Amino acid sequence: MIDDERPLPSWTDGATRDAILEFVESVSMGPHAIPVADRVAVFDNDGTLWTEKPMPTELHYVVEKWAAAAKADPALADEQPYRAAVTGDLSWLAAAVDKHYAGDDSDVQVVLRALVGLTIGMSVEDYAAAVSAFYRDAHHPTLHRPYSEVVYQPMVELLRHLERHGFTCYIVSGGDRDFMRPMTSQVYGIPPERVVGTAVGLTYDAETAQVRYAASLSFLDDGAEKPIRIWSRIGRRPILAGGNSNGDMPMLDFARRGPRGFALLVHHDDDTGRGDAPYDNGAEEAIAAASDRGYTVVSVKRDWSRVFVEPVASA
Amino acid sequence: MIDDERPLPSWTDGATRDAILEFVESVSMGPHAIPVADRVAVFDNDGTLWTEKPMPTELHYVVEKWAAAAKADPALADEQPYRAAVTGDLSWLAAAVDKHYAGDDSDVQVVLRALVGLTIGMSVEDYAAAVSAFYRDAHHPTLHRPYSEVVYQPMVELLRHLERHGFTCYIVSGGDRDFMRPMTSQVYGIPPERVVGTAVGLTYDAETAQVRYAASLSFLDDGAEKPIRIWSRIGRRPILAGGNSNGDMPMLDFARRGPRGFALLVHHDDDTGRGDAPYDNGAEEAIAAASDRGYTVVSVKRDWSRVFVEPVASA
Repeated sequence: MIDDERPLPSWTDGATRDAILEFVESVSMGPHAIPVADRVAVFDNDGTLWTEKPMPTELHYVVEKWAAAAKADPALADEQPYRAAVTGDLSWLAAAVDKHYAGDDSDVQVVLRALVGLTIGMSVEDYAAAVSAFYRDAHHPTLHRPYSEVVYQPMVELLRHLERHGFTCYIVSGGDRDFMRPMTSQVYGIPPERVVGTAVGLTYDAETAQVRYAASLSFLDDGAEKPIRIWSRIGRRPILAGGNSNGDMPMLDFARRGPRGFALLVHHDDDTGRGDAPYDNGAEEAIAAASDRGYTVVSVKRDWSRVFVEPVASA
Repeated sequence: MIDDERPLPSWTDGATRDAILEFVESVSMGPHAIPVADRVAVFDNDGTLWTEKPMPTELHYVVEKWAAAAKADPALADEQPYRAAVTGDLSWLAAAVDKHYAGDDSDVQVVLRALVGLTIGMSVEDYAAAVSAFYRDAHHPTLHRPYSEVVYQPMVELLRHLERHGFTCYIVSGGDRDFMRPMTSQVYGIPPERVVGTAVGLTYDAETAQVRYAASLSFLDDGAEKPIRIWSRIGRRPILAGGNSNGDMPMLDFARRGPRGFALLVHHDDDTGRGDAPYDNGAEEAIAAASDRGYTVVSVKRDWSRVFVEPVASA
């Protein structure tokens, strides 16, 4: 099963890579191996598996939809978040996300209402088709490449390394679950049933036998909600968790404080111009607590010899 | 992959078995095969994969716990459902379930409150251990055998037949998700992450890094909630669904009305004394609609040459 190549090739030699390799070996080989079924790993998405700067990908999608809505109904253009969408001044949106990470959800609530407004009554299958079309065409606003190419190569290598050692990997993200699902199979090799995320309420339309989006958010999958949703969906305590922000701490702790748990915290500290913006905002608490809580900190600058995946030749 | 034995050996020759075999072949072989990842099958549990008479298994568990609670606090013994538990007169509970299937949830709400009361503040892992202990020791009250032996052999054969043809099978039940999870791997070969069911609210206890049960029900996974929970958990429309009651109809329709869907309705009509009680209550509407809605009705009497699994030699 295990080939001869150097595992985790885009990870530089050092304590971080060693710690990961040693943990994976300790739980998958020898007399103290953990049963395969219990080798569950969970990963945050935005900022952990792919870049979340200058803003989470979903904001790009909804900004396009909001701009179209304001074009159809010009009265909307004076209100946030439609104003941001129409003017192209997205600083209000970026600030809303920063405020969320700092504990103030007021602007995020405005965003979420407008977000939920985009899909009221839409069938889940129609939404999946709309999102798939977006991923086919959209490009990252500052890196100018498809979103499938702003994925962190070292993290994809980690997913594959874990799978080769019997792990099952899940995404557990604050992002909208159904916005992630259409791309996670292709980009991460993680199928829809292993994507956990923020959920819009659903209704069942018996007339058409369709599941449709309702008018309110069901839950925001961040902070303390993450271990709750992990249990709901998986029914097991993960033995490995990876995240990058304060909102990942409960999930990291839930894994780390199991009998044999491991937690990774990606720290965006790369100021060498390889395309990953350095930032600590929204992660200050997690970084400060890493040593006490036993998180293994991944320095993008120090631990990754390569940041993004290779561009895929277009089909 | 496919062995030479007659598939579905406990199913009698006839239209039902033929319809199942033909459907499975049509979606798994030849140029019109459906991709493996989309071969999702969902099954109700109580009354579909194992017997739900004289009452769902979980009632046996909670009756024991309620009796213990009333012993510790004698004032409880005058109230339902504790009175039923203490006196051993479970007809009130059976009637509550019948009323639920008939659309009246008043007594079920009383049951659910007392049910939720049993686990407030308990960690999900402690509950799993308590439930596992119950399954190890408890016997079905009228068949006098372990619950693992009141499982329908033809349905287990169907699960295995589907898996051999690339299907992934899930349980989608009105039963309490976390009450099912400790036994489904052993009894059905279905792991906890593929068990969907009624959910008690959860909280995350950061102090101990434990997920614990909250004071209220999160949702009752029955009726229109079933397709909603299928989408939430799986993110795909199933191509096969199996159930036995009115509450399964939305799930059966959700599968059946997809581009190539198949729905099975188990009809408990066996009056030949093989241990499966005949009953239509709670299934009248589904049985009446079966022809119009394209459900393939499984007659226990006619279609199953054997009802229950072989007893397993004790370890």
